[in-house]
Amino acid sequence: MSVNDRSEAALNNKVKNVMISRSKWHVPASIVSKRTVNPIRETVFKMTAKPNPDKELISLSLGDPTIFGNFKIHENCIDAVIKQLQSHKANGYPPAFGCEEARKALAKKFSTEDAPLTSRDIVIGSGASDALNLAIGALCNEGQNILLPRPGFSIYQTISQSKGIECRYYNLLPDRNWEIDLDQLVTLIDDKTACIIINNPSNPCGSNFSRHHLESIIQVCETYKLVIISDEIYEDMVFGSEKFYPIASLTKSVPILKVSGLAKRYLVPGWRVGWVIIYDQNGILDEIRNALLSLSNIILGANSLVQYSIPDIIFNTPDEFYQDTNNQLERNASISANILSKIRGLHVIVPQGAMYMMVGINVEEFKDIKDDLEFTEKLLEEESVMCLPGRCFHYPNYIRIVIAPHPEKLEEAYDRIREFCIRHYI
Amino acid sequence: MSVNDRSEAALNNKVKNVMISRSKWHVPASIVSKRTVNPIRETVFKMTAKPNPDKELISLSLGDPTIFGNFKIHENCIDAVIKQLQSHKANGYPPAFGCEEARKALAKKFSTEDAPLTSRDIVIGSGASDALNLAIGALCNEGQNILLPRPGFSIYQTISQSKGIECRYYNLLPDRNWEIDLDQLVTLIDDKTACIIINNPSNPCGSNFSRHHLESIIQVCETYKLVIISDEIYEDMVFGSEKFYPIASLTKSVPILKVSGLAKRYLVPGWRVGWVIIYDQNGILDEIRNALLSLSNIILGANSLVQYSIPDIIFNTPDEFYQDTNNQLERNASISANILSKIRGLHVIVPQGAMYMMVGINVEEFKDIKDDLEFTEKLLEEESVMCLPGRCFHYPNYIRIVIAPHPEKLEEAYDRIREFCIRHYI
Repeated sequence: MSVNDRSEAALNNKVKNVMISRSKWHVPASIVSKRTVNPIRETVFKMTAKPNPDKELISLSLGDPTIFGNFKIHENCIDAVIKQLQSHKANGYPPAFGCEEARKALAKKFSTEDAPLTSRDIVIGSGASDALNLAIGALCNEGQNILLPRPGFSIYQTISQSKGIECRYYNLLPDRNWEIDLDQLVTLIDDKTACIIINNPSNPCGSNFSRHHLESIIQVCETYKLVIISDEIYEDMVFGSEKFYPIASLTKSVPILKVSGLAKRYLVPGWRVGWVIIYDQNGILDEIRNALLSLSNIILGANSLVQYSIPDIIFNTPDEFYQDTNNQLERNASISANILSKIRGLHVIVPQGAMYMMVGINVEEFKDIKDDLEFTEKLLEEESVMCLPGRCFHYPNYIRIVIAPHPEKLEEAYDRIREFCIRHYI
Repeated sequence: MSVNDRSEAALNNKVKNVMISRSKWHVPASIVSKRTVNPIRETVFKMTAKPNPDKELISLSLGDPTIFGNFKIHENCIDAVIKQLQSHKANGYPPAFGCEEARKALAKKFSTEDAPLTSRDIVIGSGASDALNLAIGALCNEGQNILLPRPGFSIYQTISQSKGIECRYYNLLPDRNWEIDLDQLVTLIDDKTACIIINNPSNPCGSNFSRHHLESIIQVCETYKLVIISDEIYEDMVFGSEKFYPIASLTKSVPILKVSGLAKRYLVPGWRVGWVIIYDQNGILDEIRNALLSLSNIILGANSLVQYSIPDIIFNTPDEFYQDTNNQLERNASISANILSKIRGLHVIVPQGAMYMMVGINVEEFKDIKDDLEFTEKLLEEESVMCLPGRCFHYPNYIRIVIAPHPEKLEEAYDRIREFCIRHYI
């Protein structure tokens, strides 16, 4: 054979092999998609229990304040979007990292004396979940690890595992209003620890860290040079004498990516506009700033109508709106804690903020309930009350209750929980 | 030392080592973010040319039909969103993969006799770019390869490279109205080829495949068992006697993920609502269907106001609206081809659809222009006309022109290009 013949034969052979190897349809899901797991969806999906058909379903499981009818978006926010719609000027592509008008407004709103911002410090994403995805994606590599709260909101795990990042859980202490166990936290840190996520006020805990505790967290992060992703989507949603401190307002040295959005404060989770705010006075996050911009090129950012409405929404919504939300939630928290703390077999940690509370199940006091999953399943089957088992948040033998429904609905749900607990008590 | 002492010493040692290794701030950008590159942004960013201050800038570079003022969103679409705003019922979280109402409407609209759909076949994402990200992410693993068009829209590369997927480019043939060179395409396929992306009508080519050519593509994909991601964001935007065929309407055996959205057809790219449609009559994509749902848990989907407006938008926008868009673009295409084909040194391929045309630069005919980049830079500097160099689409010595501006603006831009070409002609 000549050289040409030989190379043609080799080519033919290669083509033949490819055709043989591809002779049948076989389309497996990607590895990344298989490790992208939403623990809430998985848990609920596996629950076989059905509500009691004789009792109306009361759902205390969805962290969506819009579904109960008592929390209503302010007219100012509606008008802001209508104005943009009618202007015919907010339908085009904003920059992938967000429009200048919105970023400028957010920089103004979230600047503090010790932590000044410009629009360059803001990256807008499609909801706070996209903002988290950008922040985690910018900071972490496959094979590194990330420190997450336990109990904690499941999306941190979903995003991190999807990227092949190892999740390490630091403990929150129920007896200390869910403060971080910093002694245990430091044992998790090693060379491969890319960052820590804190969530304050917390979903699922309903806790709000004190200034002192935030300063202690900062001290640890300073010692171990740990960048903080601070999920503050429930910022300012605190009760009574509680005060919310943005962690970035308490440090000039530890760089912070604050993640937040319109979802909870403005009661519009479906609008899908969130943001990452880069607090970094010493240029430590210069590479990360570029990384966030690069990553925003994948989905090209958030809805333009809402983005252009941001200045109106954040500057012209009256204070009474926020206050009314907090007052309602505080009242519901108080009702919830009062009633549930009197039920034998339950252990209540009074919420300080957000729209959740964690309730401990003293399983040894029940005769036929072995864990949180069985508690929630039987509660649904017998009383048509739906809560999430603590395992959704890596915290077994607790349940998470959403305290956003009407007080009367909450009271009815708690009446049923009382009956349920009495019936199953030892 | 006792065993306890020894293990305590080891622990102390470990802690000390961690503290030493983490004694300085060092926060590099992630590997994924570094490989997430937008070639258009990179190219434009590196261009040092500034527009001629004596001439008004005419931009023929942005594929956003909303910025010129001649293409206006239909009032029906505005009213649809206002209705949702005022209902107070579209502010909450839809399911991450899209609300049932929208998915049902889309299934109805995109069903064909031979390719029937249900809402289960629709996954809604935050814009067509997110839909592409979901489709590519569901099908491809790091280390595999994906077949992309050359010239082709850059986001396929941005998304694929971000995931560590090798991009292999199949050629489009300018002399055959940008049909695929199928002989060259098959040489790219091997065991690690995860799928092929086709884009019809095409950005940047402005081409529209014939039925016969689509059937030839299907035949190759059937032979090599290649899943098709068909980006049909410009569907039905074709001129004159051209007819657009959704590729899924032409096969019952090759599984297709069709990607599209509201952006171009409804002139609202900023609204960020797109979708993946699963055409799979033989269960070949069962795993991929689940993968798409899993991956949608990362950013939790698209804006709720727009999602709930989809039935109104797609069923109640009058046909005249689409026809008017096409008529305007067709007129602009004809003006563009007529004028530019008479300019010496340029080589025009007449567009059949979408809102783009590719114009070849015969560089050997110019005395001081060595390539497409120099052409676009000098054109901007001298004539304040901004086009994108073909290298943004992996196709040097062409430029891409967006034909969406007002005809008078186009004519003025082409007058300037004519002067420019005469000035630099050999």
